[in-house]
Amino acid sequence: MKCTVCRGPAEIRVPRHNTKFCIPHFREHILRQVKRSIRKYEMFGHSERVLLSVSGGKDSMALWKALIELGYQVEGLHINNGFGSFSEESEKAVRSFSERQGAPVHIYRFQELAGYPFETMLRYTHMPPCSLCGTAKRYLSNRIAVEGGYDALASGHNLDDETAFLLGNLLHGQTGYLQRQSPVLPAEPGLVRKSKPLVRLTDRDMSLYAQVEEIPYHGGQCPHARKVMSHFHKEVMNYVSDHSPGTKGSFYFGFVDKLQPLLSGSAGADGGEQEEVNYCTVCGYKTTRRGKCKWCELKETVAREEGAHADGGRNH
Amino acid sequence: MKCTVCRGPAEIRVPRHNTKFCIPHFREHILRQVKRSIRKYEMFGHSERVLLSVSGGKDSMALWKALIELGYQVEGLHINNGFGSFSEESEKAVRSFSERQGAPVHIYRFQELAGYPFETMLRYTHMPPCSLCGTAKRYLSNRIAVEGGYDALASGHNLDDETAFLLGNLLHGQTGYLQRQSPVLPAEPGLVRKSKPLVRLTDRDMSLYAQVEEIPYHGGQCPHARKVMSHFHKEVMNYVSDHSPGTKGSFYFGFVDKLQPLLSGSAGADGGEQEEVNYCTVCGYKTTRRGKCKWCELKETVAREEGAHADGGRNH
Repeated sequence: MKCTVCRGPAEIRVPRHNTKFCIPHFREHILRQVKRSIRKYEMFGHSERVLLSVSGGKDSMALWKALIELGYQVEGLHINNGFGSFSEESEKAVRSFSERQGAPVHIYRFQELAGYPFETMLRYTHMPPCSLCGTAKRYLSNRIAVEGGYDALASGHNLDDETAFLLGNLLHGQTGYLQRQSPVLPAEPGLVRKSKPLVRLTDRDMSLYAQVEEIPYHGGQCPHARKVMSHFHKEVMNYVSDHSPGTKGSFYFGFVDKLQPLLSGSAGADGGEQEEVNYCTVCGYKTTRRGKCKWCELKETVAREEGAHADGGRNH
Repeated sequence: MKCTVCRGPAEIRVPRHNTKFCIPHFREHILRQVKRSIRKYEMFGHSERVLLSVSGGKDSMALWKALIELGYQVEGLHINNGFGSFSEESEKAVRSFSERQGAPVHIYRFQELAGYPFETMLRYTHMPPCSLCGTAKRYLSNRIAVEGGYDALASGHNLDDETAFLLGNLLHGQTGYLQRQSPVLPAEPGLVRKSKPLVRLTDRDMSLYAQVEEIPYHGGQCPHARKVMSHFHKEVMNYVSDHSPGTKGSFYFGFVDKLQPLLSGSAGADGGEQEEVNYCTVCGYKTTRRGKCKWCELKETVAREEGAHADGGRNH
């Protein structure tokens, strides 16, 4: 097996691109794919300050390394959810990488940002844990990025995450999500620009890159992540892609480059599907709702329920 | 197991609708689903003349029966491709049903409509057989319907066919097909209205209905149908739907009712994606091409190649 670039001994095969690489050219390949996504979708420039959400898992940690290698001004943002040893191990990986690379990082505990521990919010909101975590992280990381004056917020969602999400939204007719699913969402008042520089790379690519670069990451599974639909959709996409390599890319980029612009264009054109622009009456941040944003409403629910329980505990 | 409607003994379970039926109420269920599609998408009315493409397979034969039961003015159209015993058995099923029901039918041989046997066109056009058959049937059945003054042309494509096609087009970024994929395509000059009354019913539903109604059909597989991608996409959709029943419907109707209108609307709005309207310089029928339509071009290719072979046979 020979490296497609230098014809030296290859160690890594990338079937999706029908190529083989030696270690140095695999590194180059990963960085080229990241750079290509950043440029094509105008995610951010070298003079901009980028805040990267780092969970401690392979994708965000590997992206952190790639952005440093590519010379971007990146700082990490880690929110520790307090899920016992899983969260402790994740934070440890983040701190260890930050120290080794001398990379700036901002670490918070969920409770100090939200005002309540995650498990308390889970109990009183009755939300599925992944929804609560997603809602919290979207709100909190945007607010931290806006208040810190960052130009862009980046995340480690890769092609496998995005195709699984896209498939799920298509299978279940989630038109709203489909209109917003894009590698980059431009800034709006109160909303920082959001980007996903790993859309051209898969789970496997990122595992290999993390290994090759000896990046510390926490490989454990989130204790709440069992049986989520996104795992099933990833499994379906892997099955499809094993049958015909390259399908993840044609599916995702066919959608975001060709269909998605027609959808958002259409929404803008007739106005009927366009979201209303509102600002939360509590925190002042942008929301698609009237009155309170979802996050502020959740916090009020928790405050109310917690008060009721403290007053005599009607429920057990 | 009790019938959801009458509480009598049920014989058929329909997991997608979370219901069970006795035989008479299963019949009713099928007819209700067909009627619902016809009305919702304004496919045709009771005073209109409908031409139904009947292959001799379970779907089109069962739809024929359902349209008769629902009192529509339907006539069958069968084109015998000349694929040996497969085609002979198919035509036999069509004739047998027509005689039993006293249902009008128009039967043609491929060669008398196309001017060449199917296998000759296949050899000289180098098209995959399913593409050639699709191109031929679309062209010929439209022309027969237009010249016969029919108000609508119907086909037996069911929810499994449509979701497999939709999935394939999404996975491979076929925006053009996605913009036209709809349960009904309105008439245009030279194009009859086209409709798919089985979009709310699956392969399994139609097999059961054909069995219950003792409809003669040819269950054999087309000799050219091996290893086509649509089988793989059906398999994927069945896997998804076994995991979460009802997904085929939410996928298909989410697309055609919510996304598809945005796509065609958008194409119309900016004009950039709208197809040019042209008429074939040979046959005069509508085409998306300039000059000759695809069908007339194929026939010219065959005429030219066949001539060259008769003149001395450059290729073997």
